Amino acid sequence: MMLKQKDFIDLEGLTDEEIYGILETASSMKDIFTRSVKKVPTLRGKTVVNLFFEPSTRTKSSFDLAAKRLSADVMSISKKASSVVKGETLLDTARTMEVMAADVVVVRHSHPGAAKYLGDNLQAAVLNAGDGPHAHPTQALLDIFTIWDKLGELKGKKILIIGDIAHSRVARSNIWGLLALGAEIRLCGPATLIPMGIEQAGVKVYQDVDEALKGVDAVNILRIQLERQERGLFPSLREYRYLYGINKERQKSLKPEALVMHPGPMNRGVEIESNVADSKQSVITEQVANGVAIRMALLYLLAGKEVKHEALA
Amino acid sequence: MMLKQKDFIDLEGLTDEEIYGILETASSMKDIFTRSVKKVPTLRGKTVVNLFFEPSTRTKSSFDLAAKRLSADVMSISKKASSVVKGETLLDTARTMEVMAADVVVVRHSHPGAAKYLGDNLQAAVLNAGDGPHAHPTQALLDIFTIWDKLGELKGKKILIIGDIAHSRVARSNIWGLLALGAEIRLCGPATLIPMGIEQAGVKVYQDVDEALKGVDAVNILRIQLERQERGLFPSLREYRYLYGINKERQKSLKPEALVMHPGPMNRGVEIESNVADSKQSVITEQVANGVAIRMALLYLLAGKEVKHEALA
Amino acid sequence: MMLKQKDFIDLEGLTDEEIYGILETASSMKDIFTRSVKKVPTLRGKTVVNLFFEPSTRTKSSFDLAAKRLSADVMSISKKASSVVKGETLLDTARTMEVMAADVVVVRHSHPGAAKYLGDNLQAAVLNAGDGPHAHPTQALLDIFTIWDKLGELKGKKILIIGDIAHSRVARSNIWGLLALGAEIRLCGPATLIPMGIEQAGVKVYQDVDEALKGVDAVNILRIQLERQERGLFPSLREYRYLYGINKERQKSLKPEALVMHPGPMNRGVEIESNVADSKQSVITEQVANGVAIRMALLYLLAGKEVKHEALA
Repeated sequence: MMLKQKDFIDLEGLTDEEIYGILETASSMKDIFTRSVKKVPTLRGKTVVNLFFEPSTRTKSSFDLAAKRLSADVMSISKKASSVVKGETLLDTARTMEVMAADVVVVRHSHPGAAKYLGDNLQAAVLNAGDGPHAHPTQALLDIFTIWDKLGELKGKKILIIGDIAHSRVARSNIWGLLALGAEIRLCGPATLIPMGIEQAGVKVYQDVDEALKGVDAVNILRIQLERQERGLFPSLREYRYLYGINKERQKSLKPEALVMHPGPMNRGVEIESNVADSKQSVITEQVANGVAIRMALLYLLAGKEVKHEALA
Repeated sequence: MMLKQKDFIDLEGLTDEEIYGILETASSMKDIFTRSVKKVPTLRGKTVVNLFFEPSTRTKSSFDLAAKRLSADVMSISKKASSVVKGETLLDTARTMEVMAADVVVVRHSHPGAAKYLGDNLQAAVLNAGDGPHAHPTQALLDIFTIWDKLGELKGKKILIIGDIAHSRVARSNIWGLLALGAEIRLCGPATLIPMGIEQAGVKVYQDVDEALKGVDAVNILRIQLERQERGLFPSLREYRYLYGINKERQKSLKPEALVMHPGPMNRGVEIESNVADSKQSVITEQVANGVAIRMALLYLLAGKEVKHEALA
Repeated sequence: MMLKQKDFIDLEGLTDEEIYGILETASSMKDIFTRSVKKVPTLRGKTVVNLFFEPSTRTKSSFDLAAKRLSADVMSISKKASSVVKGETLLDTARTMEVMAADVVVVRHSHPGAAKYLGDNLQAAVLNAGDGPHAHPTQALLDIFTIWDKLGELKGKKILIIGDIAHSRVARSNIWGLLALGAEIRLCGPATLIPMGIEQAGVKVYQDVDEALKGVDAVNILRIQLERQERGLFPSLREYRYLYGINKERQKSLKPEALVMHPGPMNRGVEIESNVADSKQSVITEQVANGVAIRMALLYLLAGKEVKHEALA
């Protein structure tokens, strides 16, 4: 299986066949790193550059590790250390890394469209690790992979996403992917945090979390961004917890095989209670492990293509 | 030689046989990296995660290098970069790293007990790289290794530790180790910085540094923490230097074969004068080199055990 | 070809033969990393320590990558993370890294002479990656390599350097190297930023950039340091751009084969216009690629020598 495109920016426009192709590649990758020999020489001599302009533990570590497992060299540039502080443009920074080295540039940036902009202007493959509120496709793929791995094909599965849908790149990317695979999507959260008219896209919106939970196959609980609360976009944390937080009581209404998911990092005691997060239905730590597999798959699929560095020709 | 325990948190409770077992393993490791081929494939495919919540050059670099010499992959997470800034719990951060990868988690944290807490809750091996004022066992082992390497068995050796004993994890860990090996321990420092009643543990306390120095086999000079001085726990730096600082004059009272030690980083001109630090009796740079060997030994002993990642099963 | 000296601090005092020797080594290195197998085992088991006390993307990444391409292990220490915050001396920090590991210490520091000081006091090879306003020899060598690679021998070539000559380590190092190779050097910039009496060294100074550009083989456009402007050392950015900025109009006066160069990071729209930076005459991205080759060459030439670590003997 090979990806058609040079870059991987969003799930929008991917067919179900392409998505399942990625999931199957990730499945092989997961097999590799659960065996005792954890390293494969697939990308030896390739260089992956992590350009992280926003702080991140798990996404950056996950890409870092995925690259190392494939024996690629990894270079990490964060905002602080970079010439960005000297006023260099994003493209010049990225081009510098490309010319030096990069076969794949993994980029996280606060600006929606940053990844696509780099992809359009670099010869190296660009992998979007989150661009502002726009997209976070590898997170969505690892969420979908986790459901698929546990429950099989997504078609007809009822998936509930709870939280700040409007500002969440995780939600947006999940919605694109799940729609492509024919899942039934439910959204629940404060009315101020649900995009107006999103039902047009074929999703169902619930005000009442207890009703939304009925009969779902998986519930994906988004992290509450405390800074939004400060801006008055939703009520107090106590109210949020009361109205939308998933606690033991609400968990009881789930089917036994339903999955409890969270992209992390969790605010325990706000959007999710500790005894739910650590329960048997929770696949939260498994999501983290699957994230490495998904990123290995995408790095492999993108870096397989030879990059022609004009400057070196 | 294999360690009984999954984690390595403190020297308390180790037998002399176990400590010498670690020292002998370190001795083999030192042989490896002083030969021209500096790298061995012992931990190829294993991943060591450095979780450093306090700044550190030497301890972090030392672990980093030890892991690389054994061909392990290394992931380093520091406080700034991590999701800890987003309010995630220490355990969630560590668990994330574990699920992704970690065979060994090396942790430094300002909270006493942090390493043990992680060890009790993770399946990966946890190695304490300093937990608040509690313990810094790899530093103590490298100090002990240095003495053993130069002077042989520790039994009956007179070891003097000078400085802020009360707040020093280095002193605490040294004391546990040296007691287990039957050394004679002397402590010297301002009365406010010596724990009350510590003589009960079998150590001798001296007020007068000149008397304390008489006949010792090694003197371990602790770093003065300037922030404690600001809090009034000891007199001015000038007075400290006068009362406890090791200068050429005091060095002359040492036996010719006695060792001058310092865990670093040094405040030259405060607790130790430059001409003492750089003298022939000083083994301060050798301590640094031995630190890599000790960490190689412990990584090897801990990572030898297979970790079962439940989330991946 | 082997370097005579243990360290590489500046171009001052190098013969043309020695410089061409480095360029030819870099040329072989460039061949290596433009082939599909990008990695060679030349420095396997060697450790390169990057000690960066000033922020830098490109220089640090370039050294990092150069070392990885040669299969060396790389340790990076930046100011923040290091014990320097604890008041340790530069030499103690560097010695610590040396004793642990380092075959080559790459150092960037705001203090002129810092690299030489380390070189004189360490057994490891020291490579200067910029020491205050003094020198930045690898940047100069990559600039010279780029000209040589495109236009052949430097003897008699007319090279114009525009900008803040007085405070630029890039300019200083370029001047030393170009003089050694018999190039004709032209300097142009605000009178306040040209060192008095520099003509004595055998360079020509121009006030008028349009005149300076006539007949040159390469123009090296220095980055404007905005902080100097704030200190009143040159007029407003608008005036600078008007008087010295290289725009399309000025580019037209160049010979067709003349090269447009910039050490980066660029202030687009100040010292150089975007349509010049991205034009066919521009070799700016190629300079970045050549930087990796030059650093591979120097690491190879320096690390070839066996380092004797006394502390380990």
